[in-house]
Amino acid sequence: MKALSAVDVDEAHARILKWIRVTPVIRMQGPGARPVVLKLECLQRSGSFKLRGAFNKLLSLGEAASRGVITASGGNHGLGVAWAGWLSGKPVHVYVPEKTPSMKIDMLERANARVQCIAGTYADAEAAARDAAESKGLPYIHAYDDPDVIAGQGTVLREFLTQAPEVQTTVVAVGGGGLAAGSVLAAEGRRIVGVEPHGANTMSAAFDAGGPVRLSRIDSLAADSLGALKAGDWTYRICRTGLDRIDLVDDLALINAQRWLWEHLRVVCEIGAAAGLAALANGCLDDDPGPIGIVLCGANVHPSKFIK
Amino acid sequence: MKALSAVDVDEAHARILKWIRVTPVIRMQGPGARPVVLKLECLQRSGSFKLRGAFNKLLSLGEAASRGVITASGGNHGLGVAWAGWLSGKPVHVYVPEKTPSMKIDMLERANARVQCIAGTYADAEAAARDAAESKGLPYIHAYDDPDVIAGQGTVLREFLTQAPEVQTTVVAVGGGGLAAGSVLAAEGRRIVGVEPHGANTMSAAFDAGGPVRLSRIDSLAADSLGALKAGDWTYRICRTGLDRIDLVDDLALINAQRWLWEHLRVVCEIGAAAGLAALANGCLDDDPGPIGIVLCGANVHPSKFIK
Repeated sequence: MKALSAVDVDEAHARILKWIRVTPVIRMQGPGARPVVLKLECLQRSGSFKLRGAFNKLLSLGEAASRGVITASGGNHGLGVAWAGWLSGKPVHVYVPEKTPSMKIDMLERANARVQCIAGTYADAEAAARDAAESKGLPYIHAYDDPDVIAGQGTVLREFLTQAPEVQTTVVAVGGGGLAAGSVLAAEGRRIVGVEPHGANTMSAAFDAGGPVRLSRIDSLAADSLGALKAGDWTYRICRTGLDRIDLVDDLALINAQRWLWEHLRVVCEIGAAAGLAALANGCLDDDPGPIGIVLCGANVHPSKFIK
Repeated sequence: MKALSAVDVDEAHARILKWIRVTPVIRMQGPGARPVVLKLECLQRSGSFKLRGAFNKLLSLGEAASRGVITASGGNHGLGVAWAGWLSGKPVHVYVPEKTPSMKIDMLERANARVQCIAGTYADAEAAARDAAESKGLPYIHAYDDPDVIAGQGTVLREFLTQAPEVQTTVVAVGGGGLAAGSVLAAEGRRIVGVEPHGANTMSAAFDAGGPVRLSRIDSLAADSLGALKAGDWTYRICRTGLDRIDLVDDLALINAQRWLWEHLRVVCEIGAAAGLAALANGCLDDDPGPIGIVLCGANVHPSKFIK
């Protein structure tokens, strides 16, 4: 394993900049009237930050991706790869488990992806996608455990710190760890705090075990975006040494943070993407140096899910 | 009537800056892949730009507002005044017509306003509010035909042009004309295009008649935010000389623009606030110098109204 650094993030940013949106930041009072800076990555093309890692991977593959790429995901990663392929003119095959909501399949197909529904769970879809990648000779793009994907996700924080250099501590949601690991690379020493939901504590379980371990199940309302069962080797290694810590929040705190964002800012945010704000509202950041930066990393949710 | 200028907008901005949010801009591809810069004023405190004018008025009143102020509005202006009073510790009385949705009354009350429901139409609520203002000796704050309100609304464009100095033409929705007139003051010669819905063409009717005229009715889905029956004397005079023109769009274009913002940007916007984007999508801006700037000026809408 080569070592990744901020240089890889810089290179990724140069590579993908013409394809992504520079998402804005807003300075405001957070819960409890604490000043915060929010990075509105929920306004990214494809509806989440995942476009960045997918695009960096696709462009890094170069000729190897010319006949297309394959991935497995019924969520934001699948959309990110689909959009990256669509914009750059590469065919994208996305394998999803059969239970994937039709709304998500529609979104994938509208982004020009060729969607394969596979009987069984996500693991079955992933196995089928890997088999297809091998038999067709096409690259398989992992959702987080890939150095190019990680470097791409790091561009969120790179941009954020340019836009809001006053930020001393940044909070990011942790699923498989791609955004968190990328943030560590881009932070160059500034503090990054990860947040996981109870019941989806994939990375903190890896910290406790001294390496990635497979959770038996995910038990959180944020399962659709933070539902990775096992941390990656790359993401674990980077997060273990670079994250200040991982805070845990429960589903109620996530729901409240998601609603708060609508009530106070008119921003629609996925429940998992509200994890950083939930941690702030719970007081987890009370002892961290401020200003506090929070990455809102996805908005692929129907607002009726949380606005009654 | 004294003449207003960019200096009044500068002073307004200095006055209100600590109370408002500097709302972000985002550069992206608009409908038809045309590059646009959007000013996300829909993320302003109180859910719309109206906070700015209300706050500038309230602070300009100084001691005269110490016992509170009165206004009539079941919409964004009422919320703007309520928030301004709440944040600065002044009592705010808001008179609303009895048919005002309970959701809007709740929002006013949560912003600490004292709400009076008046039998009849908006005109009845306004008359009752003016009577109460006179009998109680409290200032009445007009929604748009007031120099301090206009100067406050102008701070949106002032900020926008600082954030996106490349913008050559800016499009704003026109209701009573407060935002449009304020934008003209702040533009200092750069092109401002107003957009009105068919059926709510208050300002273009005034242009045609050579002065403000009262429309017999408003017939547009955007009535709740762009439903002023008559342009103001102040707003008419400034818009008449300073707006490049007013384009008209129909309700279908407004609906499509509102949906486009959700589908492509995950931004929730009131139907009236989508008027600028609707004009762009309709090709109205095809001959204007770009880049085109569009102000999205309000988000006080329930997303289920347009996201199925």
